[in-house]
Amino acid sequence: MDPTTPQTACFEAGIKFGSLYHQFAGTPISPDSADSLATAMEEAIENQPYCESVTVSVKEEALAAAIDDAGADYTELTGRLLDVAMEIDYEGVTVETSMAMADGYPLMQVDAVRE
Amino acid sequence: MDPTTPQTACFEAGIKFGSLYHQFAGTPISPDSADSLATAMEEAIENQPYCESVTVSVKEEALAAAIDDAGADYTELTGRLLDVAMEIDYEGVTVETSMAMADGYPLMQVDAVRE
Amino acid sequence: MDPTTPQTACFEAGIKFGSLYHQFAGTPISPDSADSLATAMEEAIENQPYCESVTVSVKEEALAAAIDDAGADYTELTGRLLDVAMEIDYEGVTVETSMAMADGYPLMQVDAVRE
Amino acid sequence: MDPTTPQTACFEAGIKFGSLYHQFAGTPISPDSADSLATAMEEAIENQPYCESVTVSVKEEALAAAIDDAGADYTELTGRLLDVAMEIDYEGVTVETSMAMADGYPLMQVDAVRE
Repeated sequence: MDPTTPQTACFEAGIKFGSLYHQFAGTPISPDSADSLATAMEEAIENQPYCESVTVSVKEEALAAAIDDAGADYTELTGRLLDVAMEIDYEGVTVETSMAMADGYPLMQVDAVRE
Repeated sequence: MDPTTPQTACFEAGIKFGSLYHQFAGTPISPDSADSLATAMEEAIENQPYCESVTVSVKEEALAAAIDDAGADYTELTGRLLDVAMEIDYEGVTVETSMAMADGYPLMQVDAVRE
Repeated sequence: MDPTTPQTACFEAGIKFGSLYHQFAGTPISPDSADSLATAMEEAIENQPYCESVTVSVKEEALAAAIDDAGADYTELTGRLLDVAMEIDYEGVTVETSMAMADGYPLMQVDAVRE
Repeated sequence: MDPTTPQTACFEAGIKFGSLYHQFAGTPISPDSADSLATAMEEAIENQPYCESVTVSVKEEALAAAIDDAGADYTELTGRLLDVAMEIDYEGVTVETSMAMADGYPLMQVDAVRE
């Protein structure tokens, strides 16, 4: 069967999450550069179709711990360092999504679908 | 409202597409290296949860044209060079998706949702 | 033979260019998001060892032309849209490098090595 | 001063390392997909100018440990999982380079410069 409008809206939401994650994973990051990277991630992904808003925040403690592990002044971006929320609006359907840690692993999920 | 199972299945399908595209966009590619890249893209994304199968083919004519434009022996991977099909299986729901050119732009879409 | 200090300095400079280019190629970009992306690229790569300064500017006309070609509101970052200058300091050797278009292709080069 | 030919050769070698690392960091990887990814990395980077050969091997034990840490069936590619060797030939100068772990951190280095 063809997808419904809410199903397509959820597909579009997923595209944005996969894009955000795999475009920026591996970027060198430090406490000094965290804010500019978070802003660039938000504004870059908001360019994509149907993407109403993106909020990225870097988790300061997780970043400090990762830098400490690396034994350097910076580390590379992974999902463990991020909280992300995103709203997709597709043909009258709003999809709220987020990424956060669950059982030690970054989990992307749909929080709400509103028609 | 919470997402339905088919909506979450479509979200998962979108994640895979965004991942595939933004992980590999920009990779140096030539006719000689196209097959190994396509295979690696398939096998990499098939690692992701609920991803039953991924088929990537590089469009030979589009690749030749892009290399010719670049005036070099290779070019960088973009969506214009790819046909992609993907099947996601999430809790009994199967989602068929594809990426192909539409109006000169690579379009990712849900082709079918089966419960 | 083992590399000299200036040779290693040039190797380090090359690493930064390859990193900058392949980390960010493919990022969605529009006139509204160009500044935040340029800033994030600068600050991210400046985290890397021996990287004294990075200057990234997005070429407004080239960006407008690429967006027009794409028939959309945004496009994906490629080397054609960027001017980049970078200074590496490695054990007393300073390397000045840049990336700019040459014959229709983005060319990364060492402009000066100072001991 | 303008760079010497060996200095430019080392710059070119660095570009290839940065490219390889930041293009592919973050790629989903498992024991089953490791070989195809390593082959694609080799063939992709060998497309770049002056790149005579690239050898990538995935460290099986490190991969198994990272997957175990992630509590999943796969993990994301980082430098900890790779051994890389590369030969650049630029205008009669050969540069041998490698990446391997040093003090718990992936270190890219020039092993030899031959004129």
